Order: sequence, then C-alpha cells, then structure tokens
Amino acid sequence: MTAFSRFTPLISALPSTVPFVGPEAIERQRGRPVLARIGANESGFGPAPSVLAAIAASSGEIWKYNDPENHALKTALAAHLGTAPANIAVGEGVDSLLGLIVRLVIEPGMPVVTSLGGYPTFNFHVNGFGGRLVTVPYVDDREDLEGLLAAVKRENAPLVYFANPDNPMGSWWDAASITAFARALPETTLLVLDEAYCETAPAGSTPPIGDLIDLPNVLRTRTFSKAYGLAGARVGYAIGTPGTVLAFDKIRNHFGMARLSTEAALAALADQAYLAEVLGRISAARDRISAIARANGLDPLPSATNFVAIDCGGDGVRARAIVDGLMEHGVFIRMPGVAPLNRCIRVSAGLAADLDLFEASLPKVLKTL
Amino acid sequence: MTAFSRFTPLISALPSTVPFVGPEAIERQRGRPVLARIGANESGFGPAPSVLAAIAASSGEIWKYNDPENHALKTALAAHLGTAPANIAVGEGVDSLLGLIVRLVIEPGMPVVTSLGGYPTFNFHVNGFGGRLVTVPYVDDREDLEGLLAAVKRENAPLVYFANPDNPMGSWWDAASITAFARALPETTLLVLDEAYCETAPAGSTPPIGDLIDLPNVLRTRTFSKAYGLAGARVGYAIGTPGTVLAFDKIRNHFGMARLSTEAALAALADQAYLAEVLGRISAARDRISAIARANGLDPLPSATNFVAIDCGGDGVRARAIVDGLMEHGVFIRMPGVAPLNRCIRVSAGLAADLDLFEASLPKVLKTL
Repeated sequence: MTAFSRFTPLISALPSTVPFVGPEAIERQRGRPVLARIGANESGFGPAPSVLAAIAASSGEIWKYNDPENHALKTALAAHLGTAPANIAVGEGVDSLLGLIVRLVIEPGMPVVTSLGGYPTFNFHVNGFGGRLVTVPYVDDREDLEGLLAAVKRENAPLVYFANPDNPMGSWWDAASITAFARALPETTLLVLDEAYCETAPAGSTPPIGDLIDLPNVLRTRTFSKAYGLAGARVGYAIGTPGTVLAFDKIRNHFGMARLSTEAALAALADQAYLAEVLGRISAARDRISAIARANGLDPLPSATNFVAIDCGGDGVRARAIVDGLMEHGVFIRMPGVAPLNRCIRVSAGLAADLDLFEASLPKVLKTL
Repeated sequence: MTAFSRFTPLISALPSTVPFVGPEAIERQRGRPVLARIGANESGFGPAPSVLAAIAASSGEIWKYNDPENHALKTALAAHLGTAPANIAVGEGVDSLLGLIVRLVIEPGMPVVTSLGGYPTFNFHVNGFGGRLVTVPYVDDREDLEGLLAAVKRENAPLVYFANPDNPMGSWWDAASITAFARALPETTLLVLDEAYCETAPAGSTPPIGDLIDLPNVLRTRTFSKAYGLAGARVGYAIGTPGTVLAFDKIRNHFGMARLSTEAALAALADQAYLAEVLGRISAARDRISAIARANGLDPLPSATNFVAIDCGGDGVRARAIVDGLMEHGVFIRMPGVAPLNRCIRVSAGLAADLDLFEASLPKVLKTL
C-alpha cells in the first residue's frame, strides 16, 4: 500500500493501533448484532426528553457554524460549577482535550506518568506526541496516589494522569486525598484529573471546585458522555486557572464543536432533575449487575461509576473468553487491557432488558469455559 | 494571569490569536444582533428537509458513541465519488483534518508553502506545529500555481496548500492545470488540495477523482459545511491513497465524530436533488450580489464558490470600513486579511431577505466613507 514518503519520523514509527474497537466494528467482524450495548460506559437510559426537544428546536440552525468561543456553554457550566467562564475550556469530548493537553506539554522523549492499565486513549495521545509512558501499578484495584507522586518526582515528569473515579476498575479516592495529591505535586507537573464519572461518585469523593481552582498545574476534565447520556454528542470540558485554560486557544480547533451537540449539552445541564433520576437508575443497575455476578460465583468490585468491574477469578484469558462468549449472545461488554486488572470484565449500567440478556447469557458462557 | 509554567517552548511562543472571530462574538462585542448572516460562507438555504428528518429520526441514539471507523459514511462517500472507502478519511470538519495533516508532516522549522492571503486556519495549524510559512502572492486574484511549484522546489517543502476554488477570492483553475501541478510536485511534497467549494465550481474545474487517486502525495479535502448546508455539523473528509489515508488513524480522535452530524451528512449526500436546487439558488444569489455591487460602483469578481469577493476600489482600510459599517446595519460579512486581496469584501450567498438588507445598507455605508 503506497503512502506518502515523508511523514515525520515520529509518525512513521507509530503503530496503527486504535484505543478501542467500537461495537459496530465488532458487529461487522462477527456478523452478529449487538443486542445489549453495555460495554462502552454509555448511558442506555439516554438523554433527557428536554434534550431531545432542544435538539429538535435547534436542528434547523445546523447550517451555522457554532460559536467558536462556546460562550453560552462556558457561561452555563460556570454557573453550574460556581466558577467563572474563564476557568473553562470546551472540546469535542474529553478525548480531544486530552490530545490537546499532551500537545501543550509533551515533547518527544518526555516522561508522562499514569497508571498501568489506565485510560488507553490518554496513552494513545502520549504515544502520538512521542512521550514516554511511565506506568505505576494499581494497588488493591485503585490507582496508587503515593506511587504516582513518587514516579512524578523520580522522573521530573511534566504531566501526570489520574482518574477519579477510575476507569476501568470503578474505584475511587476520597476528596481530601486527591486534594493533598494535587498540592503535593511539583508546580512543574501538570495534573490531568479525569472526572468523567464524577456525577456517579459517592459524596465526599470529588474535591469541591474551589479546592483546586487556584492551581495552575491542575486541569480537571469532565464530560457529557456518561451520566448525561450524550456520548454521541462529543462534549467535554476542562476546568483550570484562566491562564492555563487560555493555552487551549493557541492550538484547539476553534470551530470544532457541533452545534446540536452544544445545544444538547446546554439542555442536559439545565435538567438536573433528569440527571438525578438517571443516577438512581445507574445505582440500581450497578446493584443488579453485582447481584448477577455473585449469583454466578463471580466477585463484583465496588463502583463509583456507571459500570461494574467483575473479578472473574482467573486471568486475562478467562476474562477474554467471557467477553467473547457474551458477544455470541449479542452482549457487548469490555475488559481491562493489562494484568492484574484483566482478570475482570467491565459491564456498564443499562436498561432492564440489557441486563436481562446479560443475566441469561452469563451462566451459559461460564458453562463453556 | 497564572498559567502552568512548563508548556513546551513552541506552545509558550504561540500567540493567542484565532483564525476567525465568529459572528456571535461580534454581536457580543458590538451589542448588536446579526440580521443578515452572510459572512462565513455558510449556506443560509439550510440543509435538506430530508436531513432534518434524519436528525429527528436518530436523535434518540445520541447516547451512543459514533462508530469510530465511520464505516457508513466512508462507504456512502466512496459510492458517491466512485472510489473505495479505504481512500477516505473522515474528520470533525476540514479544519480538524488540516491540523492532522500538518502534524503528520511538519516538524518545527520546516517550510510549508501556501498563498499569501490563503486560508488562515491552515496557517494557524502550521504555526501551531512550528512550521515556517512560505507564502506566494496571488496573481490576478488567483493562487499562482507556477509560483507555488517554484517555492516548493526552492524550499524543498514537504507540504503545500492549494484551494480550488479559492477562498477568499472565489477564483479557480481548470482541472487540467491542477492535475499538471499535482503531478509536477516532488513526490516528497504533500499537496493539500482544498476543495471545500467544489460543488459550486463550474464544470471542468475539478479534476475527476480518478485523475489524482494514484498519487500518495495528494490529499483532497471536502466538506459538508458549504453547499450541503451543514457547517454546524462539522463533517469533512480527505481523499487519497489508502496508505496515506491510513496515517490519520495513527493520531486522529477516533471517537471524535458527533453521531447526529454523521447521520446528517449521510442524508445530505443521499439527497442530490436538494443539492442541485441549492446550487441554483447559490448561483442566483451570486448574480444578485454582483448586481448590487455594480449598482454601487463596486467591482464584483467572478466566483466559483458560494460567495462573491467585491473589489471596493481602495485599500484594506476602505474595505474594513465597509465591513464594520455594514455590521452597524446588522449585516455580517468578512474580508480578506492581507493586501492586495484586502481591497475586497466577501459576501456569502444567502436568502433574499439577507441580500435585501445588504442591498439597502451598502449605499448608506458607502455614503459615510
């Protein structure tokens, strides 16, 4: 296959691996439809009716570029969070913001600290800019704050990634520990505090905005993809000091946000009653997933997210067989990528019908192992 | 304003300038609403009714991430273009693809050839990756193919940008000249052939897909933002050899496309009858804009796009006064950024009411100069 001959050495050396294979690709590869889509930590409960109404009301405006300053969304988020619009950067999903953050900080060869088995898309971007990943193993299925801090100091790393609650394990830390971690970091180390699942986390596990907002070396990232049910809209945001946030403007795709996505996010944010309802349904779904796991002799881990990691009592081969076996029944789930996390499968909260199929299929799959 | 202290030297040296100020920002700055939005080469004729129906039908699916492989859209585009899905990369608007292309090829200090006054967002990305812009003046308000080729060879440039038809002047070349230019380039120079306005161009000005599809050093970029009326959706694509196109997968935001945007693009592509109708309306609007210009003693340039550049018979100061003066009447237009192109204003095709306001306001503004 003939390609252009003069890509940069960095690009030429990159593999073509992708962070995640989508369920649609699995459907095409297997020739089998996904019947229960509970693998990507989307929200099968969907967005609020008020969100669908907002999309309908604004779809005729889709011929207009979106406001490149994202004024309305930044203003609404600031009011919701109790901070200022200047503290917020908006992007096409957190994945996009993670790429920009890596680009802002990392030159080829620089060390970047993250957890061994942490979010693959962050690693994808670090590799894409030539950074050198320094990984710290999980301890008791939690990211290791102490180990991360030690690695940062040992490596003089300019960037560290930490997710609270964590994906893929669903574990979490208390707010005080996270605040202490952030404040203990050298000011020459930028912390990406990924809070994609903060809405589903227990009280006391997410530091108040004000507790970290003065730190120029902290960016907290959040999303409308999870609890708000808008994964397909691609709306994420980062919270930081005005000076740090302003750096995104130097390199971001100013006209990158889709107009209806922004309208959807604005409506979702305004409908906190619907969010509260969904949080109740997510909590109930987590309980049911855990009960199904236990009924099958598996060990569900506690979860602060919209999914449950289930310890299948073996290694990655066994978990992979369960993931693949469930897909034979049309149940799409995922699993962590590296040991020892990959003894687990990861099942997202979903509708009763989705969990019914999971419940019916899991014992059949386990019987074949 | 306190910012993180360890951004890369490249980032630290970048200005915070943005490629374009949006009309919403102008409204906020001026405290005056845009009544005729004919400045960003959007399509005020809007998308097809079938597109709005497709959005309505799929909006309930917005909780799902989009297929990261963009299988359906690539397949539909390939069928439409008479090529293969492997020849196509999809991105969040051409702006996003331009950023990826620059990143694939440019390391700090490398020369990048473009026209003096060409698309500012391309330049934004070149600066963002530390490239060195080498600009070639327009000749007779057209990009200078011969001059661009000479600059490429003189500089041994790995990247050259050329738009056909051109923005901001609306001018164009014939297909044979463009094909000859592409084939005359060193194979170590990647040509970005920006064809954002190809739908509105006269017959014989766009090379058939097959004429350039064998060249690994050519990427043709196209968009749903202009004639298709979907600027707010952010859907662009690049056409090239499978090997070159595959490089995007190494660095792109795989989950970056908004789901409803993809559905909108699929529906728009399927409704070629609506596109044909819009093309007629764009042509009529161009004629009317030109007539209004002439009636006011100004000189409209021929246009192959959905806008008309109008020579205002002076310099950039005079054109700027007209742009600013029209905004006082609620008419949002733009103008080229550099001399001698900035003797012109640029007016996008729009609805009759928009052009009515332009027609009524222009003589009032000219009288004040």
